[in-house]
Amino acid sequence: MPQPENVRYELYYWPGIQGRGEFVRLALEEAAAEYVDVARLPEESGGGARALMRVLGESTPPAFAPPILRSGELLIAQTANILQYLGPRLGLVPDGEAARLFAHQLQLTIADFILEIHDVHHPIASSLYYEDQKPEALRRAVPFTKERIPKYLGYFERVLEKNQVGENGALVGPSLSYVDLSMFQVMAGLKYAFPNTLSKLTPTIPRLVALRDHVAARPGIAAYLASPRRIPFNESGIFRRYPELDVGSK
Amino acid sequence: MPQPENVRYELYYWPGIQGRGEFVRLALEEAAAEYVDVARLPEESGGGARALMRVLGESTPPAFAPPILRSGELLIAQTANILQYLGPRLGLVPDGEAARLFAHQLQLTIADFILEIHDVHHPIASSLYYEDQKPEALRRAVPFTKERIPKYLGYFERVLEKNQVGENGALVGPSLSYVDLSMFQVMAGLKYAFPNTLSKLTPTIPRLVALRDHVAARPGIAAYLASPRRIPFNESGIFRRYPELDVGSK
Repeated sequence: MPQPENVRYELYYWPGIQGRGEFVRLALEEAAAEYVDVARLPEESGGGARALMRVLGESTPPAFAPPILRSGELLIAQTANILQYLGPRLGLVPDGEAARLFAHQLQLTIADFILEIHDVHHPIASSLYYEDQKPEALRRAVPFTKERIPKYLGYFERVLEKNQVGENGALVGPSLSYVDLSMFQVMAGLKYAFPNTLSKLTPTIPRLVALRDHVAARPGIAAYLASPRRIPFNESGIFRRYPELDVGSK
Repeated sequence: MPQPENVRYELYYWPGIQGRGEFVRLALEEAAAEYVDVARLPEESGGGARALMRVLGESTPPAFAPPILRSGELLIAQTANILQYLGPRLGLVPDGEAARLFAHQLQLTIADFILEIHDVHHPIASSLYYEDQKPEALRRAVPFTKERIPKYLGYFERVLEKNQVGENGALVGPSLSYVDLSMFQVMAGLKYAFPNTLSKLTPTIPRLVALRDHVAARPGIAAYLASPRRIPFNESGIFRRYPELDVGSK
């Protein structure tokens, strides 16, 4: 694996949640890249949500939402766009046009899945509290856990099955890529938010379970997960433990 | 503008709707690229939804959903991924890393917007009819038309304002890119689905209105829009005219 470039990246993301920023953090941590998680610095050191709002409000070109990555003169937004940019620089994507296109395609499919996972607890509006859209969330949870989670996980299991060259559960190419790190995060998040649904599906997705365990055991990731840099899952993020929505095993 | 390569592209998408496939069609049409819209061929010529289902079911690597583009040996899925691939080949994106990253970032933001537009009429499940989730749709339509449409359009208007080098309403760089074609489609779709909401917002988004009109007047696009290849907007697609959801002007 190539060594990371000697670049100091700046990540701008909400300081209190894993959220979409976590997919970027996992890539930076796996590669032991030098980076600053700016909004998690104290305000007196130029951090806090205020630093994030400043970049959001003033950046050129403008970004619609975080995460935002600063790399030298570049300001890059949209999680999958950031990962596509970082992949070759961090040694986290195979060479070759076909492999890179497919890696990005998978990452965009993960992005779609993430949005559906979020919208289960926010089916009416992101600007309302969960408690104010709970009846709709309860209704959405049924097809989401019974149809959508199995469809997405079944798809990724099939990708692993068809990747004849992948070792240790690599979704693209022969070895670990940023997509595998993101898939780990999805599996970890589903286990937190939908433990019963995931437990029922587990026998049907042995390759995804192996991928998750393999990624979690990598030295850089294991150290990160055990560190205070890893924000715990909580009920402000994408993956929320609302047991009343975890109905996929019924 | 460079001439399109002498490649015959194959597009696989649902034959009865514009949907996400339309963003790819607009790029191919603007560039006068040689392509086949496979599922719109008669079944006896290897077309129809069956051709699409076959590619979806058997392709390696597997795709989660259409649109899918075949280019030589490559099978590429995810709309923004396809457009990022086609951009340089069709002369529809500026040169340079920063411009291409930003073009893709904007396209991914359009993808997020499109998904929200779709979910207004499908807040509970894509697998249910609109009529079976109408109370939830009516509730979602309020924050969507009053907060989300203004937020997204305000953002893209600001991008146009900040692009000092853009002529005729180019979102990225000095001249037309695939992102402008997609933005045209969003504006046309909103005008169809949310005419009152859009009418109220029109005075605040003069640059987006000019962009839409400029794209619609380009010879290749004008010819396409007047041709039978352009599927009309309808109530099976992303943009649906349900007047009860068009409440943003109230």
